[in-house]
Amino acid sequence: MKPPVINFSTLQATVEITATLAFALSGLLAGARKQLDVVGLCVVAGLSAFGGGTLRDVLLDRRPFFWVEHADWLWALMALSFGAMLFMRHRHLALTEKAIQWPDALGLGLFTASGTSLALEAGMPGIVAVLMGVITATFGGVLRDIVCNEIPAAFNDHRPYALCSFVGGWVMVAMVHASAPPWAAISATAAVAMLLRGLALWTGWTLPAWRIDGR
Amino acid sequence: MKPPVINFSTLQATVEITATLAFALSGLLAGARKQLDVVGLCVVAGLSAFGGGTLRDVLLDRRPFFWVEHADWLWALMALSFGAMLFMRHRHLALTEKAIQWPDALGLGLFTASGTSLALEAGMPGIVAVLMGVITATFGGVLRDIVCNEIPAAFNDHRPYALCSFVGGWVMVAMVHASAPPWAAISATAAVAMLLRGLALWTGWTLPAWRIDGR
Amino acid sequence: MKPPVINFSTLQATVEITATLAFALSGLLAGARKQLDVVGLCVVAGLSAFGGGTLRDVLLDRRPFFWVEHADWLWALMALSFGAMLFMRHRHLALTEKAIQWPDALGLGLFTASGTSLALEAGMPGIVAVLMGVITATFGGVLRDIVCNEIPAAFNDHRPYALCSFVGGWVMVAMVHASAPPWAAISATAAVAMLLRGLALWTGWTLPAWRIDGR
Repeated sequence: MKPPVINFSTLQATVEITATLAFALSGLLAGARKQLDVVGLCVVAGLSAFGGGTLRDVLLDRRPFFWVEHADWLWALMALSFGAMLFMRHRHLALTEKAIQWPDALGLGLFTASGTSLALEAGMPGIVAVLMGVITATFGGVLRDIVCNEIPAAFNDHRPYALCSFVGGWVMVAMVHASAPPWAAISATAAVAMLLRGLALWTGWTLPAWRIDGR
Repeated sequence: MKPPVINFSTLQATVEITATLAFALSGLLAGARKQLDVVGLCVVAGLSAFGGGTLRDVLLDRRPFFWVEHADWLWALMALSFGAMLFMRHRHLALTEKAIQWPDALGLGLFTASGTSLALEAGMPGIVAVLMGVITATFGGVLRDIVCNEIPAAFNDHRPYALCSFVGGWVMVAMVHASAPPWAAISATAAVAMLLRGLALWTGWTLPAWRIDGR
Repeated sequence: MKPPVINFSTLQATVEITATLAFALSGLLAGARKQLDVVGLCVVAGLSAFGGGTLRDVLLDRRPFFWVEHADWLWALMALSFGAMLFMRHRHLALTEKAIQWPDALGLGLFTASGTSLALEAGMPGIVAVLMGVITATFGGVLRDIVCNEIPAAFNDHRPYALCSFVGGWVMVAMVHASAPPWAAISATAAVAMLLRGLALWTGWTLPAWRIDGR
């Protein structure tokens, strides 16, 4: 019943890099809309990519952070921010937003899997582990929106996002309890969260609204 | 001179639950006003209820968090959020806001007592312990307001709130220095903070304004 | 190649106090503009002065915080906030903002030096250590702006601020690698960051804008 440890095979590394870049790009888009300067762009890109995992690690009291162990990524992130600033124009924004939806869903799935798995490893109960997965997957975007002075999109755009991560996290909990092999648990978790997100995008499904103004 | 440890008697558990629910409800009200979706509601309810204590624990490097040790509360919180969404309407908002003023004052008192007491236990000097009590009691609401994209009410509504907690915290410091029994220190601290808050609500007392525009 | 430890000589203490006061004053100015009450003023002053260093210490898992070890500063901060509220009027705001530019640049330099140096001591790689210096020097202001419900000035005023700290941090990394004596490394780092900031203020240099609207 030992929870799976994420190993970096070449395939997985490729997938992880794609997902992290998608998260960073979502930060760059938000920063562009807010006319941030180059420093602000690097910060929102970094917060979007690493903020969720870092917050999870602070809560779990885990060190070193991903971006401390793999400090090269910080350079990649800066290069990405400079590149975006040099080459991205207004007409690219909507395009990029559409293009990153799928890698972003991938990131949602992978970060859910890694966050939930790490929390289970640290001995957290199921609901807490799932929450840690959700935090890993969504709080990068939340911090991005707070810095950009917006209500976090994850909390008020009425599209399922954190919810997909929440459901995916329970897949991880179930498979670890069933002593499934790590690669199976991770794949299943990531797949469920990603497909749910994809389904939500595809069908335009919205969360039921709070009909606070009466019937 | 050992600072008191909070024990959960039945009475105290009831009081604590009431206070935490009041904090969670204050988050739900703020979320309702901002038209958050169900995910956002759960998050602001959770931040309001547990955010202050969690920030205190991160600062004091204390683990496990309350909501990790008592993970059942997370389910209760979600149930509360769903219930509010199903049954609460616009005409309920002002009503609820009025109804939770007193349990909220209770929470202010209790969280001040537990925060200050835990910080003294951890060997913090008086002023730091009092600050930790204030953080425990007020930063849930501060995080709630930051997520809702508002200036925190505790900082600009010119009503005494954190101040009541600040005064209450010094009662705890004094009683611990006087080697008072734990139950007495906790009761006195909570009572002073709560009554001060009640008095402020009753009399409509406002903090003196900064007459920045001249005399 | 042991990184330098910051010692408090009288001169350095004076310089450090001046810089911290400048940071606290920048918080008070922001709070005044937002009409915060006295509690909010103390909080933004405290966040501006100690927020960056505290966030760095949480990330590096370092304890005790500066304001726990030197709890007297908390009293000084409150006194400063009360004094500002009593004596500062609208016509003083622009004046103070101008007057604190130089001590603020000094703080930028010193906090960069101390943050980078502490991170190197903790065994962080160069780029991470430099980032920790930047966080120490700028995130007080970032937290101040988030609480005041503004996009952080460091990210969107297009004036070099974090950038000066970033360049300064590399001076520290280089000098530690060259086994320079601590006082030299600290002085050089602080001087470079401060002079760059001064130069930027003097010449009105702005960061290149993202020409997102096309050529």
